Amino acid sequence: MSRDRLIYLPLGGAGEIGMNAYVYGYGPKGRERLILVDLGVTFPDMDSTPGVDLIMPDITWLEKNKDRLEAVFITHAHEDHIGGIAHMWRKLGAPVVYARVFTAHHARRKMEEQGADPSAVNTVPVYPAVTEAGPFKVSFFPVAHSIPESSGLVIDTPAGRIVHTGDFKLDETPVLGEAFDPKLWAEIAKPGVKALVCDSTNVFSVKAGRSEATVGPEIERLIGESAGMVVATTFASNVARLKTLALAGQRSGRSVVLLGRAMRRMVQAGMETGLLKDFPTVIPVEEAREIPRNNLLLLATGSQGERRAAVAQLSRGKYLGMSMKEGDTLLFSSKTIPGNERGVISIMNAFSEMGVDIVDDDDGLYHVSGHANRPDIERTHEVFKPQMLIPMHGEHRHLRQHAKLGEARGIASLVAVNGMMVDFAGNRPSVVEYIDTGRTYLDGSVKIGAMDGVVRERIRMALHGHVMVNVIIDEDDTPLGEPWVETMGLPRNGTSNAELVEVLEGDLTQVMMRMDDKTLLDDDKIEEQIRRATRMTTQNEVGKKAEVTVVVSRLMGA
Amino acid sequence: MSRDRLIYLPLGGAGEIGMNAYVYGYGPKGRERLILVDLGVTFPDMDSTPGVDLIMPDITWLEKNKDRLEAVFITHAHEDHIGGIAHMWRKLGAPVVYARVFTAHHARRKMEEQGADPSAVNTVPVYPAVTEAGPFKVSFFPVAHSIPESSGLVIDTPAGRIVHTGDFKLDETPVLGEAFDPKLWAEIAKPGVKALVCDSTNVFSVKAGRSEATVGPEIERLIGESAGMVVATTFASNVARLKTLALAGQRSGRSVVLLGRAMRRMVQAGMETGLLKDFPTVIPVEEAREIPRNNLLLLATGSQGERRAAVAQLSRGKYLGMSMKEGDTLLFSSKTIPGNERGVISIMNAFSEMGVDIVDDDDGLYHVSGHANRPDIERTHEVFKPQMLIPMHGEHRHLRQHAKLGEARGIASLVAVNGMMVDFAGNRPSVVEYIDTGRTYLDGSVKIGAMDGVVRERIRMALHGHVMVNVIIDEDDTPLGEPWVETMGLPRNGTSNAELVEVLEGDLTQVMMRMDDKTLLDDDKIEEQIRRATRMTTQNEVGKKAEVTVVVSRLMGA
Repeated sequence: MSRDRLIYLPLGGAGEIGMNAYVYGYGPKGRERLILVDLGVTFPDMDSTPGVDLIMPDITWLEKNKDRLEAVFITHAHEDHIGGIAHMWRKLGAPVVYARVFTAHHARRKMEEQGADPSAVNTVPVYPAVTEAGPFKVSFFPVAHSIPESSGLVIDTPAGRIVHTGDFKLDETPVLGEAFDPKLWAEIAKPGVKALVCDSTNVFSVKAGRSEATVGPEIERLIGESAGMVVATTFASNVARLKTLALAGQRSGRSVVLLGRAMRRMVQAGMETGLLKDFPTVIPVEEAREIPRNNLLLLATGSQGERRAAVAQLSRGKYLGMSMKEGDTLLFSSKTIPGNERGVISIMNAFSEMGVDIVDDDDGLYHVSGHANRPDIERTHEVFKPQMLIPMHGEHRHLRQHAKLGEARGIASLVAVNGMMVDFAGNRPSVVEYIDTGRTYLDGSVKIGAMDGVVRERIRMALHGHVMVNVIIDEDDTPLGEPWVETMGLPRNGTSNAELVEVLEGDLTQVMMRMDDKTLLDDDKIEEQIRRATRMTTQNEVGKKAEVTVVVSRLMGA
Repeated sequence: MSRDRLIYLPLGGAGEIGMNAYVYGYGPKGRERLILVDLGVTFPDMDSTPGVDLIMPDITWLEKNKDRLEAVFITHAHEDHIGGIAHMWRKLGAPVVYARVFTAHHARRKMEEQGADPSAVNTVPVYPAVTEAGPFKVSFFPVAHSIPESSGLVIDTPAGRIVHTGDFKLDETPVLGEAFDPKLWAEIAKPGVKALVCDSTNVFSVKAGRSEATVGPEIERLIGESAGMVVATTFASNVARLKTLALAGQRSGRSVVLLGRAMRRMVQAGMETGLLKDFPTVIPVEEAREIPRNNLLLLATGSQGERRAAVAQLSRGKYLGMSMKEGDTLLFSSKTIPGNERGVISIMNAFSEMGVDIVDDDDGLYHVSGHANRPDIERTHEVFKPQMLIPMHGEHRHLRQHAKLGEARGIASLVAVNGMMVDFAGNRPSVVEYIDTGRTYLDGSVKIGAMDGVVRERIRMALHGHVMVNVIIDEDDTPLGEPWVETMGLPRNGTSNAELVEVLEGDLTQVMMRMDDKTLLDDDKIEEQIRRATRMTTQNEVGKKAEVTVVVSRLMGA
């Protein structure tokens, strides 16, 4: 007799921080009914993904099994959880999407932007309300995080209860939105939790996390002591922080201005959804220009050094008529995400040249993380007392460390990375299948696979330059004139001091002259000889084996 | 009457951390006799300098004035101070180079590698010994740093004494080499210091720096508690740390192995120069394979995640017959330099997958910086009591913060960035000229200017892909056949689902057909129309305006 399986399959987010996508399934092997929790994106970088616009999980497996997909649940509106849904919704067979009010608000806008159907997004109330999706009964339970209405999911199945934490921290005074509620958690834990699938981001932070409420007084003191204009930046989606900042500005007698589209959009979303109350009056930037700068607080996008965001624009000069100068203060109420350091530092230096005072979170005063630290994770284990623990939302090192914590407590813990299908039905999590996973790139307007070689070609051109060689073969199968060479991304002159193009044309003319009749009949052979000679010459002349494209044009007899 | 000037001109290192190069001059305006202190390099990155091998300061000004250059002084053997000298020595007119034993050892090797004359490098003793160079009397005084024999310079001139700190920290127990000696500093300060040119790297670290001696006990405890093999990585040039690590290994009964060429070279240099005494016996890696892994300590290169270094190699599997596995420990006895985070993290995750325990310096136990922190910088101001202060070795934000500290103490302080020529002869530092400066890239085997456009072309190809179009015009000035298109770094299919190359060839055939006779006579016009049409098509098809190279081949009448 084959028993039903309760499967967990991360397609993104397990073994990386970014592009979360977790599949749960229940039913007979291979016929499990499925739900998807989150479908996020990751941002590209020049090192590994130059020219790419967005990175999404490869959902081929889910596409193939879309007839089994009951619904998609989005835990919160951060891009690494929500960013992929509008791009991939059609491929998944246009499933119903469930989210809470604030998240649904953003999901619908994204669906509209991508020409998908916003009405597929359904707003759901919180626990104890239940949304049924095939064999699953799903409840959103509020957790504190760095965006409004972040939620964990209680996923009840015939094989037991799963708690999927989503991104969370334990914050009893979160400034905005629902506080951590130990009683609610105890109630969820009461019937017994089969599996806890839990955020691992801050597992290496060994002290308990601090509350959002602790940053307000520090920010207020800083703004109060600042003589000039103050510009503060943080993630636009951190609406609680925006509120903290704006209130601090207001109390210091400053008018508040929102700079940057995402900033205005998030505050507007907060107001429209009724979450953001008591937000100080915001004045348009046009009015701000008439106000003395020591009476201004600008909340600006670009805490990660994004080149087009408001802070980067200000670092280059005027932005919407505003500019910073000596005596002003720029507050980074944020942490720099690894990989963004260079951009952030370069902006800090540009402001330093203007005489602007930079305050960042080096001393830990003006920012707190939205994720549970190690002691908070351990408390979560303690509260839910799960039979098994699956760390998620982390690189391998985070998952592994998190699993160690579970093991130390006697919980059956498993490091499951993207593509590992785990069955929760037994007493321990067991890996039952390995699914091919990977990354899909949104490249301009086109989706390409990470392994298609397109980006690899770009990286090679960036490292080695590109030589194009043009050879014409006449009707008698003999070379017509000399090879024509163009280069891009290579030095003009080589070590011989001659022009590289001329050296190449000279060398390649020799190569062509030495080709025998048989070779001259074969475009592939011509190409190969030209390519090899080109690489050898660039190696000799400039110390690089360039990328080479050879075009052989053959004139046809009349 | 024109008075003599005492000039300071940073060509690198002021407004950035890296490629230090500081010129001092004394004499009548425009005829000052010059010395150069340090000539370093900076390392490239994919974001701004893909394919570049090394970044050096643009020394055009110094080249033009090489007949006035008396000598080059190298403060210590870190690449950002010594790395450029062998590459640029000839251009500078083959000047005499002065350095202390350990630094000279490395400088000579580098000169040999570049085919320059190693005998140009002269070894000098320390203060109070004096080296004369034109109007300058220069003494090397020992400072503690993270490489042996790091030195500050006392530069006596007819206009007064300059103290150029070099890279330094205040460490009275540096494990290896000369300790901070307050009496010596007081002696140097005694005749009065006209200008202090001072390291700014750690000006944002508000607590006093810790001594190298404090990491030993922590490292020893960690290694003692480790059950499997221990691999420790740090900068190879941090010979004191290598000694600390090796002694800790020895005390735990482990055999010490050096992995990586730089590691072996530095230890050898330390021994050959007589600096490194009591270093535990090192065994060759071949012997290590026969020793139980819990009796092994490997000191490995690659603390910054460098792809070819020993640690990265181990993260990919076997290296020289050694490999890491579950239960082993990898210690990063180092700090990750901003910009290197991604590489380091990716290696940590690879080891995590093997089950290796990673220990880094998050808790500040296993590494101390080689630079003076803010209180130490302030103590330096206090000791030397200079008339003027010029912060160096820092980004703009560091220099600015450092100058503020000087001003607060009543010292005339100036932020002087690369290219600003400052005169110290008066009572305050005054900017007298602006010199064009910049960066020179070593690109493969060729030196190119940062503004030559070569690297810009590479970045563009990496972001937008490259399309090559080949057009043949026959003897009658009409197109022969259709344009031939090749692409590199672009998706195969566009949004129309057709092959991009075919869409392009179709569109460009239309463009060619519409060209009038006058255009067809003009290669530049043909190119321009083809380029524009190509960019429009790639924008429509793949959402990117590609880089385009057009080759027009014209058949000549017989």
